[in-house]
Amino acid sequence: MQLTKRQEALIRSLSSRHGRRGSEFCICDGLRSSREILRLRPDLVEILILRDGVGVPEESPVEPVILSGQEFERVSRTVVSSQGIIVVARRPETVPPEAPVSGPFVLLLDRVGDPGNVGTILRTARAAGLREVWVTRGSADPYSDKVLRSASGAQFALSVREHGTLDEVVALLRAKGFRRIFRTAPGGGRNVFTEPELFTDSVVVLGNEGAGAGEIPGAVNVLIPMPGDTESLNVAQAATVILFEHVRRTCAAAV
Amino acid sequence: MQLTKRQEALIRSLSSRHGRRGSEFCICDGLRSSREILRLRPDLVEILILRDGVGVPEESPVEPVILSGQEFERVSRTVVSSQGIIVVARRPETVPPEAPVSGPFVLLLDRVGDPGNVGTILRTARAAGLREVWVTRGSADPYSDKVLRSASGAQFALSVREHGTLDEVVALLRAKGFRRIFRTAPGGGRNVFTEPELFTDSVVVLGNEGAGAGEIPGAVNVLIPMPGDTESLNVAQAATVILFEHVRRTCAAAV
Repeated sequence: MQLTKRQEALIRSLSSRHGRRGSEFCICDGLRSSREILRLRPDLVEILILRDGVGVPEESPVEPVILSGQEFERVSRTVVSSQGIIVVARRPETVPPEAPVSGPFVLLLDRVGDPGNVGTILRTARAAGLREVWVTRGSADPYSDKVLRSASGAQFALSVREHGTLDEVVALLRAKGFRRIFRTAPGGGRNVFTEPELFTDSVVVLGNEGAGAGEIPGAVNVLIPMPGDTESLNVAQAATVILFEHVRRTCAAAV
Repeated sequence: MQLTKRQEALIRSLSSRHGRRGSEFCICDGLRSSREILRLRPDLVEILILRDGVGVPEESPVEPVILSGQEFERVSRTVVSSQGIIVVARRPETVPPEAPVSGPFVLLLDRVGDPGNVGTILRTARAAGLREVWVTRGSADPYSDKVLRSASGAQFALSVREHGTLDEVVALLRAKGFRRIFRTAPGGGRNVFTEPELFTDSVVVLGNEGAGAGEIPGAVNVLIPMPGDTESLNVAQAATVILFEHVRRTCAAAV
């Protein structure tokens, strides 16, 4: 089976940021993330391309297109690197703003821009048991190939909700009953390890790599204590500390 | 000031893995990591190259070589990407095996291969207040340009100790009085959040991205509880959880 002209055109359009932005599809070329998409949401898979010799995944929802090494190279040039598999899938359904929030606390990323950071946070949030992660407008596209790869396809296991700017998102969450907004700030604030209400009807905001999180009237600053002489943690590491502080408290409560 | 022929040759040799491996120098092209090297260990800086227009760092230990955009491009092709600054520095002094260990617990990376993971772990370990990180032979070169960049130069603030294979390193640490060896394993084991002796005369081993940590006779397996349906965390995230569990306990003890 060969790629149709329509499929080729779709893949080509997904190779540019502009083409991805407007599209209802996304393209993924990581082995692990592709397998996760096939496993979690086979209903969304549109095209599966394999390099000749790469094993066909057990349950393939569509007939795979097998390409010779050379043909595969030509197609895969549209994505960053390649492990012999490409999946084109529909993006999961967008959750409308009025949909209820799953869980007692919301992790909100404010314009986190590095695809590797956004992907790592999504993967870690999934491992920590979250059902959704919120992002503000201006964050890295959660469905770009880089974010899909570093998230190991977690986008297909949890909802990524984007409902506007930081102000808009905070107003929406307050209207939904989230009374406490905690904003991570390296400068100072309450200790994340001792703040008792960190995960009670609360929103924890992590900010852009350079600028940090935007100002939020009424928010409480929290910090991750750092005995070392570093000025800050990478945002994905900060998110990990907070997500697993939540897991730790939940475990302790369960014992 | 222009690059001398000897400097050009040194930079060229550092562009290959082979050249780096045997060298007493390393090359760094990240803005943040370069600044950290200049600040932390000016005595080790051999060459500082700036693209015309990039501000000269406040206290430069050597006379900077300012290159035009075009010349800079030619030189910087030896490194992955560029922010207008290149630092060539001597690697910090190797710590001999007999040197005492700093701290009550050792973080040991067993053949962690991804440069981004090793760098992120070093940066996070520094933030968590560790003075050293141990790695086994076969881990990513801690002084490669990629690891330097993702570590933000933490290699120049803490010691990275490499004393052989996993077996050799574990034997050395046991001989130094580290009685408890904890090995992170996704399969099962004691909970890192409740194991009371996790950081008492202990070694916590994190393993290779694919294969995990090697077998260690007498080691105790520990796991990071994961409520989500993921099979595992990225090794840098696992290290972050463990490092900041240590910070949390230390904070709590200090209060």
